[in-house]
Amino acid sequence: MAGRVPETYVHGYTERERTRLVDQATTLSELLHHDTRYPAGAKVLEAGCGVGAQTVSLARNSPEAQFVSIDLSAESLDTARARVRDAAIKNVSFQQANILNLPFPQESFDHVFVCFVLEHLSNPGEALASLLSRLKPGGTMTVIEGDHGSTFFHPDDAAAHRAIDCLITLQARSGGNALIGRELFPLLARSGLRDAKVSPRMVYVDSSRPGWVEGFTLNTFTAMVEGVRQQALAAGLIDAAEWKRGIAGLRRAAESDGVFCYTFFKGVGVK
Amino acid sequence: MAGRVPETYVHGYTERERTRLVDQATTLSELLHHDTRYPAGAKVLEAGCGVGAQTVSLARNSPEAQFVSIDLSAESLDTARARVRDAAIKNVSFQQANILNLPFPQESFDHVFVCFVLEHLSNPGEALASLLSRLKPGGTMTVIEGDHGSTFFHPDDAAAHRAIDCLITLQARSGGNALIGRELFPLLARSGLRDAKVSPRMVYVDSSRPGWVEGFTLNTFTAMVEGVRQQALAAGLIDAAEWKRGIAGLRRAAESDGVFCYTFFKGVGVK
Repeated sequence: MAGRVPETYVHGYTERERTRLVDQATTLSELLHHDTRYPAGAKVLEAGCGVGAQTVSLARNSPEAQFVSIDLSAESLDTARARVRDAAIKNVSFQQANILNLPFPQESFDHVFVCFVLEHLSNPGEALASLLSRLKPGGTMTVIEGDHGSTFFHPDDAAAHRAIDCLITLQARSGGNALIGRELFPLLARSGLRDAKVSPRMVYVDSSRPGWVEGFTLNTFTAMVEGVRQQALAAGLIDAAEWKRGIAGLRRAAESDGVFCYTFFKGVGVK
Repeated sequence: MAGRVPETYVHGYTERERTRLVDQATTLSELLHHDTRYPAGAKVLEAGCGVGAQTVSLARNSPEAQFVSIDLSAESLDTARARVRDAAIKNVSFQQANILNLPFPQESFDHVFVCFVLEHLSNPGEALASLLSRLKPGGTMTVIEGDHGSTFFHPDDAAAHRAIDCLITLQARSGGNALIGRELFPLLARSGLRDAKVSPRMVYVDSSRPGWVEGFTLNTFTAMVEGVRQQALAAGLIDAAEWKRGIAGLRRAAESDGVFCYTFFKGVGVK
């Protein structure tokens, strides 16, 4: 929502790109969504669906649940609609809506699902409260977020960390929080959800997993960092030479003796 | 081996302390060792057993395998012997020995196990080569290491990171590598092992897991950092006020709205 950063790295996958993220039996989508299954007839609100990158997995994993996927952007919704149609998925309806001003009655959803949204909001607690008001008692709220500060790699590289720090700083300046993953537990607990449980989902990449080296280390994470080059230079957060060294450091971690680690967090609580 | 750092945090558990590390069905020992099971009759070399903190779990998980656990320190071996005896474990014999000069014939072990040892060595590849020479073809080598640079927490705290950096610097100055966890894959691959596979084992701690808050965040990790205070100050790596703020920052992550993350890495390869 605020800025393009997350669009680049998660919302922006094409289906073909996503299927390349295969490692043994695991894709990023499986890592994040495999344990979210809604029963037949459940009415689920997906808040902030963007271009529908998660919607397809979500709806496929719960083919008998009914999803209402909302986003602020009509343009993103058009892309999401096309993606869901192309995937021959029938159990999703889309609606343009603001999380902070939801056009649904109180307690009208059985479950709520939010992925890569809170990171962009200056007041994520307010968004959770709004969503929670539309959730029926006994229903679950699921929240997934990344954490750019969880990134580490081999060989370690100070310039690469400084380039990542530019991303974190830019996201903070636009009112978001690129370190929100580690904060999910207190956010959920403070929202009033019961039995909040958070689990880390680490993406670990070495050259025994070539699909992940290309699909995640290079085409997702490094591409996301590269995407803010102009902003970072314009804001004076880093100079061009240091930036270049930083990107080279990230690419170095994708070589045959390199290793790359990034952690997503998934939280679930009950109203 | 080189320095006291790791003794404090992993080798130093008493049985009682370890049993407090319970979260649902999981202890740190289970997180690290649950998938290491050797068949009946297998002869396994545990290299660098220290005071036997891992030996007990290892031998319990494979009650019909025979372990030879070695360490450089006679004093540590005495403690390990007592611990194994107290646990009524019968399938371990201890021997004082140097990993770089092993008193065993070539290819005399079915499997080799190494936990929290390579981090202390200035040439871990040399140690792996020595161990590999005693491993039979077709046998497995298992290596577990932590990575202090994998640490992140909420609320984030720059002084706490600087205190952790002192530990990393001190370990580097004593010839070790506190960031070795992320490097396991290339180390194993370069050693000539086949089919090297590394998996991260993240310790994720929030206040829904009170046993881990006390057992890991405070009594393991923070205690380990606190253990190098004098060395860090004497080396001029940090001043006393900043150190105090750093420790307070780590303790802050153990409060009810705090979160703490640390990642161990486990690698297995076949000769």
